[in-house]
Amino acid sequence: MRELTVDLGERSYPIYIGEGLLKEASTYFIKHGISKKSPLLIITDSRVAEYHLESFESELAEAGFQTASVIVPSGESSKSLSMLESLVTKALECGLDRKSAIVALGGGVVGDLAGFVAASYMRGIKFVQVPTTILAHDSSVGGKVAVNHPLAKNIIGAFHQPELVLYDLNTLQTLPPREVSAGLSEVVKHGLIWDAEFAAWCEENAEKLLALDAEALGYALYKGCSVKAAVVSKDERENDLRAILNLGHTIGHALEAVAGYGELLHGEAISIGMVGSARLGLRYGAPEDVYTVTKRVLAKSGLPVRLPDHFDVDKIMDAMMHDKKFSEGTMVFVVPTEIGKVEIKSDVPVQWVREIVEQLKLEVQP
Amino acid sequence: MRELTVDLGERSYPIYIGEGLLKEASTYFIKHGISKKSPLLIITDSRVAEYHLESFESELAEAGFQTASVIVPSGESSKSLSMLESLVTKALECGLDRKSAIVALGGGVVGDLAGFVAASYMRGIKFVQVPTTILAHDSSVGGKVAVNHPLAKNIIGAFHQPELVLYDLNTLQTLPPREVSAGLSEVVKHGLIWDAEFAAWCEENAEKLLALDAEALGYALYKGCSVKAAVVSKDERENDLRAILNLGHTIGHALEAVAGYGELLHGEAISIGMVGSARLGLRYGAPEDVYTVTKRVLAKSGLPVRLPDHFDVDKIMDAMMHDKKFSEGTMVFVVPTEIGKVEIKSDVPVQWVREIVEQLKLEVQP
Repeated sequence: MRELTVDLGERSYPIYIGEGLLKEASTYFIKHGISKKSPLLIITDSRVAEYHLESFESELAEAGFQTASVIVPSGESSKSLSMLESLVTKALECGLDRKSAIVALGGGVVGDLAGFVAASYMRGIKFVQVPTTILAHDSSVGGKVAVNHPLAKNIIGAFHQPELVLYDLNTLQTLPPREVSAGLSEVVKHGLIWDAEFAAWCEENAEKLLALDAEALGYALYKGCSVKAAVVSKDERENDLRAILNLGHTIGHALEAVAGYGELLHGEAISIGMVGSARLGLRYGAPEDVYTVTKRVLAKSGLPVRLPDHFDVDKIMDAMMHDKKFSEGTMVFVVPTEIGKVEIKSDVPVQWVREIVEQLKLEVQP
Repeated sequence: MRELTVDLGERSYPIYIGEGLLKEASTYFIKHGISKKSPLLIITDSRVAEYHLESFESELAEAGFQTASVIVPSGESSKSLSMLESLVTKALECGLDRKSAIVALGGGVVGDLAGFVAASYMRGIKFVQVPTTILAHDSSVGGKVAVNHPLAKNIIGAFHQPELVLYDLNTLQTLPPREVSAGLSEVVKHGLIWDAEFAAWCEENAEKLLALDAEALGYALYKGCSVKAAVVSKDERENDLRAILNLGHTIGHALEAVAGYGELLHGEAISIGMVGSARLGLRYGAPEDVYTVTKRVLAKSGLPVRLPDHFDVDKIMDAMMHDKKFSEGTMVFVVPTEIGKVEIKSDVPVQWVREIVEQLKLEVQP
C-alpha cells in the first residue's frame, strides 16, 4: 500500500493506493473522521455499480455507517444541473446533514458530479473519492469538481477538496483495454511535464501497465498523483503554475470538440495533442528527443500519436479559437523544453499551430 | 460615508455605506481591482432595474467597464437551478472569463442568486454586492450564497465572499414601508444578540428609520453590518458562534413555511420568532426586560409581535420538527440571557416551545 499527501494547508488530504482497499474502506473512513452518526451517500455509475457497489456498501454498513447509494447513467451526460437537482433530492430524502459525506465511487465523471454535489449541498459537506479508473488519478488530485452546461463543459463548479482518496487497484482490473491506455495518457503527461525519470520508467514498463500489473500500476498512479499534488500544492486555485498540467490539452480539447461522439477518448485526444506540443517544442529549439521520446512513450502505452485523416484542420483551428487560451494572432501553449520540463508560451503564432495540426496527420507510428 | 471591513484574512472585504455611491461606483470598482478588460455582468431584478439599472450601468460604461446586464423576475422563485443555467448561458454569451466579475444589484434574492453564479461560474469568479434593501445588509456580510431546491430553501450554495459591498442609501428611498420594517427586523436582531446600546438606539430612532432618514439609516446599517461582521469573522463556515445569528429564526422559518404565500415577510416572521425566543429566555431565568425591550423595539419598528389567530400550532410544530435544529424530545434554540447577549440551548423541551407558540397568539401590542 502506498500513501501520499496532497499538501494544501488546512485542506490537506491523503491518497491511499493499494490492492483490496475497498474491503477495508470503513477503517479509512473512521481514521479520517467520516461520521457514523450522519448518513452518507455513495454516488456511482451503472458500470461501476455492477462490479463494486454491493460489496463496498455492505462493508461500510457492517462497520456501522448509515449508507445510501444512487446510480447515475455512466458517461458525460450525467454531469448536468438536472442530475445535480436529482442528487440533492436524494440527499434530502436520505436525511444528509452538515456532517454527512458524499462518496464518489467511479471515474472522472462520477468524481466531478459527486464532488460538486458535496461542494454545494448545504454550502459544502465532506467528500470522499474512490476512483475506479486510471484516468481518475488526475481528477482525484486538486479538488476541481463541476457539471456541464449545454454550451460549455465543466463551466459550473467549485474547488472542493476531498477528505481522503481511496484508490483500490483491484477496481482497475475490469477496465477495457482502450480505457487503460487512455488513462495512461495523463500518467505519461505527469512524467513529461515534471519528471524525466518517471517518463522513462513509463516507457520501460508500458507492457506491464497495459497488462494491469498491480505493482506497476500502483507505482505509476503514485507517481502520477505525486506530480499533480506537487503542482497543485503550489497553485491551488489555478492562477499560474497549474497551467502546465494542460500539456497537450489545447489541441486535445479541440480534437474532442470536433470528433464525432465517442470517436476519441479524452486521453487519446491529449495524446495526439502532446505530440503536437512536442513538435512545437522543436520549433522553440528543444532537443530532438522531446519529440521522439514523447511519441514513443505514448505509442508504447497504446495511444494514438497521429491525427486521423478525416479530421478537418479548419474546424480544429476554429475550436481552438473559441478556447479560453486564445488571443489575437497568437495562442497560449504549454511547450516542452526538455523531457520533464515545460514552459508556458503566450505568443505562439496561430500559423505555427495550424502547420503542426496539419503535420499531425502525417505522423508515423514509432 | 461610512466604511467597515469584514475581516476574513485573505478574503477580507470592505463595505461602503453612504448616499449617492451608485454614481461613483466605477471609482470603487477600480479601487478594488475589478477589471475593465474582462466583461462584467450585472444581475438585478425587475423592480430594482426600473429605478437604478440604467444609471448604474451607464456610469460604469462611461468609466470604461464592459458591462452587460440581466433582469430576473423579482421574488424567491428566481433562486432556482434553472435560473442559474440561464444566467450561465448569459455569462457565456457575454464572454465572461476568469477575471470577470458578477455584480448583484438588488436585495437578498438577487444577492444569493448572483453570488452563487459567481461562486460556480468557472469554479468561482469575482463578486460585487450592491444591496438595495435594508434586509440585504444581513446577507451582504458572510458570503452565504445559494439557490433553492423544490424541497428546501438555500440548500444548494456556497460560501463566496464579495470583493466589495457598495451600499447606496439612496436606493432605499423607494422601498415600500412594509419592507422597511421587515428589513429593520434583522437590524434590531443584531442589537439584541450583541449590542444592548445599539438595541436601545434602534428603539429611540425607530421613527427616523421608518421615515428613511439617511443619517439614521446609515448608522443602523453600519452597526448591523458590524455586528454580523464580528460574528462571521470568528466563524466563517458556520461551525459554532455563527448560530447566534439565528435568533428568532427557528420559529420564524416555521411560520414562513406554514403561512400562505406572501402573508409574512421574512423579517415579520422572525420578529414574531424573536418575541418567542424572549419568552423562552424568561423561562431560563433572563430578566423581564429581555422580553419587554425585545417586544417594544420590534413594535416600534413597525413589526408584528403577535401570531395571527388563524395559524395552526400543530402545523408550526411540525414545520419545526423538519427543521435541522431538532433532535428527539428537545430542540436547539438561540435564547437571550439579557439584552445584547444570547446563548445556544440545545435541550429546550418541545413542550415549552409549543406553549410559547400558543402564547404568541395572546401577545398584545406594547
